[in-house]
Amino acid sequence: MDRVKIIDCTIRDGGLMNNWEFSLEAVRSVYRSNREAGVDIMEMGYRVSPQVFRREDHGPWRFCDEELLRQVVTGPPGDMKIAVMADIGRCFKEDFLPKGESVIDVVRLACYLHQIDEAAALSDHLNRLGYATVFNIMAVSAGTAEEVGSALAVVARSGAEGVYLADTFGSFVPADIRQRLAFYRERCPGKNLGFHGHNNIQMALANSLAAREEGAAYLDASLFGMGRGAGNTPLELLLPLIRPGNIAPMMSTIQGHIEPLMAAYKWGYRIPYGVSGLLNQHPREAMAAVSAGSGISYGEFYERSEQLNLSPVP
Amino acid sequence: MDRVKIIDCTIRDGGLMNNWEFSLEAVRSVYRSNREAGVDIMEMGYRVSPQVFRREDHGPWRFCDEELLRQVVTGPPGDMKIAVMADIGRCFKEDFLPKGESVIDVVRLACYLHQIDEAAALSDHLNRLGYATVFNIMAVSAGTAEEVGSALAVVARSGAEGVYLADTFGSFVPADIRQRLAFYRERCPGKNLGFHGHNNIQMALANSLAAREEGAAYLDASLFGMGRGAGNTPLELLLPLIRPGNIAPMMSTIQGHIEPLMAAYKWGYRIPYGVSGLLNQHPREAMAAVSAGSGISYGEFYERSEQLNLSPVP
Repeated sequence: MDRVKIIDCTIRDGGLMNNWEFSLEAVRSVYRSNREAGVDIMEMGYRVSPQVFRREDHGPWRFCDEELLRQVVTGPPGDMKIAVMADIGRCFKEDFLPKGESVIDVVRLACYLHQIDEAAALSDHLNRLGYATVFNIMAVSAGTAEEVGSALAVVARSGAEGVYLADTFGSFVPADIRQRLAFYRERCPGKNLGFHGHNNIQMALANSLAAREEGAAYLDASLFGMGRGAGNTPLELLLPLIRPGNIAPMMSTIQGHIEPLMAAYKWGYRIPYGVSGLLNQHPREAMAAVSAGSGISYGEFYERSEQLNLSPVP
Repeated sequence: MDRVKIIDCTIRDGGLMNNWEFSLEAVRSVYRSNREAGVDIMEMGYRVSPQVFRREDHGPWRFCDEELLRQVVTGPPGDMKIAVMADIGRCFKEDFLPKGESVIDVVRLACYLHQIDEAAALSDHLNRLGYATVFNIMAVSAGTAEEVGSALAVVARSGAEGVYLADTFGSFVPADIRQRLAFYRERCPGKNLGFHGHNNIQMALANSLAAREEGAAYLDASLFGMGRGAGNTPLELLLPLIRPGNIAPMMSTIQGHIEPLMAAYKWGYRIPYGVSGLLNQHPREAMAAVSAGSGISYGEFYERSEQLNLSPVP
């Protein structure tokens, strides 16, 4: 197997918790400790259009302006690549410079199944500009095999480097990873496959290791698992389980810049997230239940969620 | 495969957090919701000698007096069995009544490698009294293959029903589970095998599912993962991933009786626990680091721990 690429998405996916209001110092600390540890790609945030979101409503890492990125990506060039996530429907061709004028190497295209053609059009444009692209198709566990297969056919015809299996609902166990990655490989021959986990049922890391065993070329993670709801695969655990690296600086970055955010934003396993993962449901109602605190009965939440249960699909 | 037995050890292992000071109401709620969910065995606490520990220093579930257990185990007999854990070196033959006079079905024998003969002597005595016994050998990842093999030979000659692979340091990934359970099976032919996980590197649940795939007959878990350090396998996730059950009452028990304890005792994943799991070390120093809060540098903790790193053994 080729060296798997570890992608840090702390600022991008963790930004969902703090509205992308990371200090420049925090992002620089993440950048430096990622390079020390041997992270392959650092995702700096979202690229969205200032026509869609007002700058005064969100932190700077939701826009990832080129000048901002250049305040982090400094010093001698290393092996670590720079990525941003394009939020399909919220950013457009005119939001990207030609690759030669940008520090960005990879654009990841986040889309739902129904947005796949729009994502493919942007992917083609970005490839022509000189960027590598990767598709992240969300919420596939709520789609039928036919819907997922059709979207993967679009990916297969594109010039993208690869496509992610994203466990948006946090409902997968390793057996699902094996089955679904086989399906992705069959539909997208020759493309690199990736995995993006969520920790609703505490399987994000185990699923990532299972994805690696199945030949995944990209694995996503974030520092201290920072991310919405139950959070993501913890980078500080995934990386040393995959290969040796100098992770002591990463531990310091977490202590200095990420752990303090946990106190305010409290991502991580809670019973309602477990319920939504077990029942393969979007975490939105679980997030509302956690916010409501003792105002909602977990027993009733489980029973109500069970009524809505979706059947698993490949 | 036979039906795997799910063992709830919330009161016993979770008791390490609150000094076994659970209210009778809390333990009754756990008992009732376990029965509703189809839990196979409920471990009510430790059995230790009042000659070794003073009753005024610990909650009642560290002693599990027969009269106390009878205040919980009431109503028509169901399928759920009752267990206690014998803490080898801290309880003795005279601490057990004949099975006919007790509500206990199973005694689990917790011992370190050097205590295996003492555990075997107590196991024989308990079998003669009419109890089923199971060995839980702790900290095996710090022993050599020869040491672990010798202990398993003692188990093989005993009348115990089975033996646990306990991930005391929280350092295992599924590949370790497969390798180690094969070793246990080879050394203890005909015995049931069990797995007791810890969540230092967030693998407790995944390892439990891997153990089941390898034919483990017993899987331990606790409500909301309550347990020392990073905690245990969460029962409310393990059970529904193994088989259907009525788990809504279990969710209510967690909300009413276990989640409130989290605020006071704060078990669960923290960076120092991850470090001790990654480096296969006893969590005692990690627990001290977590208690010290910002007084200790995670980067330095990692580097110091790395110096002490133990090599993995089968």
